[in-house]
Amino acid sequence: MTKRLCALVSREATRVALVLLAALAACAPAGAADPLPSRNDHQAKASILSFVQAATTEGGPGFVPPEQRVAVFDNDGTLWSEQPVYFQLMFAIDEVRRMAPGRPQWKQREPFASLLRGDLRKALAGGEKAVGETLMATHAGITTAQFEQRVRAWIASARHPSTGRRYVDMVFQPMLELLAHLRANGFKTYIVSGGGIEFVRAWSEAVYGIPPEQVVGSSVRARFELRDGVPLLVRLPEIDFVNDKGGKPVGIHRHIGRRPVAAFGNSDGDLQMLQWTAAGEGRRLCVLVRHDDAAREWAYDRDSRVCRLREALEEAATRGWTVVSMARDGATVFPGQAVRTAP
Amino acid sequence: MTKRLCALVSREATRVALVLLAALAACAPAGAADPLPSRNDHQAKASILSFVQAATTEGGPGFVPPEQRVAVFDNDGTLWSEQPVYFQLMFAIDEVRRMAPGRPQWKQREPFASLLRGDLRKALAGGEKAVGETLMATHAGITTAQFEQRVRAWIASARHPSTGRRYVDMVFQPMLELLAHLRANGFKTYIVSGGGIEFVRAWSEAVYGIPPEQVVGSSVRARFELRDGVPLLVRLPEIDFVNDKGGKPVGIHRHIGRRPVAAFGNSDGDLQMLQWTAAGEGRRLCVLVRHDDAAREWAYDRDSRVCRLREALEEAATRGWTVVSMARDGATVFPGQAVRTAP
Repeated sequence: MTKRLCALVSREATRVALVLLAALAACAPAGAADPLPSRNDHQAKASILSFVQAATTEGGPGFVPPEQRVAVFDNDGTLWSEQPVYFQLMFAIDEVRRMAPGRPQWKQREPFASLLRGDLRKALAGGEKAVGETLMATHAGITTAQFEQRVRAWIASARHPSTGRRYVDMVFQPMLELLAHLRANGFKTYIVSGGGIEFVRAWSEAVYGIPPEQVVGSSVRARFELRDGVPLLVRLPEIDFVNDKGGKPVGIHRHIGRRPVAAFGNSDGDLQMLQWTAAGEGRRLCVLVRHDDAAREWAYDRDSRVCRLREALEEAATRGWTVVSMARDGATVFPGQAVRTAP
Repeated sequence: MTKRLCALVSREATRVALVLLAALAACAPAGAADPLPSRNDHQAKASILSFVQAATTEGGPGFVPPEQRVAVFDNDGTLWSEQPVYFQLMFAIDEVRRMAPGRPQWKQREPFASLLRGDLRKALAGGEKAVGETLMATHAGITTAQFEQRVRAWIASARHPSTGRRYVDMVFQPMLELLAHLRANGFKTYIVSGGGIEFVRAWSEAVYGIPPEQVVGSSVRARFELRDGVPLLVRLPEIDFVNDKGGKPVGIHRHIGRRPVAAFGNSDGDLQMLQWTAAGEGRRLCVLVRHDDAAREWAYDRDSRVCRLREALEEAATRGWTVVSMARDGATVFPGQAVRTAP
């Protein structure tokens, strides 16, 4: 086409396209479905929807400019289950079994000996030291590429010992819908996990639609190396950063460099992240998830041995944060489960 | 409007809009201007344009899926000048002067005494220790919010001692155009700086269009604190991470979690970042900038005291990386300067 014709087409096309877009926009609300169908109509759902509505209403008091729409989610217990132990530890235990044939000395050494006999309770009786040894034996001394490959192989096939579900099918359906609803409204959704950043990244995009650059987590140190001229990053058996409690705001600040306007957690390890989010100017959304559904998931929100949720719950009550009851608020828990209306 | 009418409008509107968009797309190349007008037509410009063209040509051998379009840029000497010393150190020196009235003891203590007398050479004679003390005295012991405020106040008004320009006006015009061209083609542009992550973030969005979450840099440790109930992050006088040399691929991996497809640097400190980028599968763009323009900027690419550019240049020659000569390839250096065609 000639330049003049192109300019004409361009001008006319733009004008017509704008008219059509306006017509489409006017139609949208009439056909809009419930964006959170797996949540029952309780106060929690209303406060989430109202926050998002206000954040996207230009000129309104709760408006959040698009570049400030940062929402952060804890992972274990907030986006997926975490019983009987957090799933990264289940991965480590499965890895110990997979690697055992090449490591005969493990048969005589704790916590490996107990893990290989299937005695999780005895293996973990060694506390943090036992957990640390299990993690380091399976998470370090390999390249970042090897680690990613192992996590991907595991997550594709491993199944939870009591539900028989794949771990990726133990994510919370109401949270998947919430992530999608936030993104549809211009929010960037981040995971801010106490778990390992590279463990979560290996599957977060496929499962949650959250790309690697939007995952913040704990990490081991890494070292750049040239092996036969090929550059590699080697995972070292040293903790670099613990992204938990007061570490969460530090991790958020380091990775994102902006204060979130919405934060979602389920334990005292998320308290500081919620405080940091709440302390920003303007309207904020702070949500705590309570695990109180023994029938469909686990009820451990009052069990201080497995879930530290005391300080955060007190602060939620004082400050008016939103508390989600999985038993009451969730029409479903896991994807594909039967829908249940509010009790 | 009724639902049925809306559905009809929606279907028709979409169809017409698609036709118009196709017409617009066909027109675009005819009116396309040179996206890099401040670069002279040499091999460097051709290789950059050809890479971007290939990366966005679906089905072609150099196609890069949109989510993989990650381009990383060193900052000091690559996106802006770095003489007589890198500008973050100029900030620290200006801060020493600003803070001096409250710190009478600095008059008797090096490097502060020399800095306050304006004797930069003597102050820096103390080497890394002197630089470290200058940085820690001005960069730590304050909150992240205070630090950001100080950097912003400085960058808004401070001027370079020899050019008289504001530091933000000593960014490289050809690089601003390149950043815009990459972003227009779906690339995410990141800064990967040896400088402080929070120093760069305070102005990177305004100056380069690069948001805080796309800045990777060196950092000090930080601590979460509640002061009178208000959550704060305090910058501690301890190095947390040095994002230089082998640290750059580590920083890239930690922040982005993807291997870049394009990398731009100007010194041996960028070599590992270029190696890491080059070692990925498929076509890559690796660019080294040479400071060889004494008339318009500085010529120090062969001066090993101020610019370590030996190994990276050798590797560029071996591997066919693109080398940009500022004297030859830049039609302009700083924004607003007179355009000069190739010598």
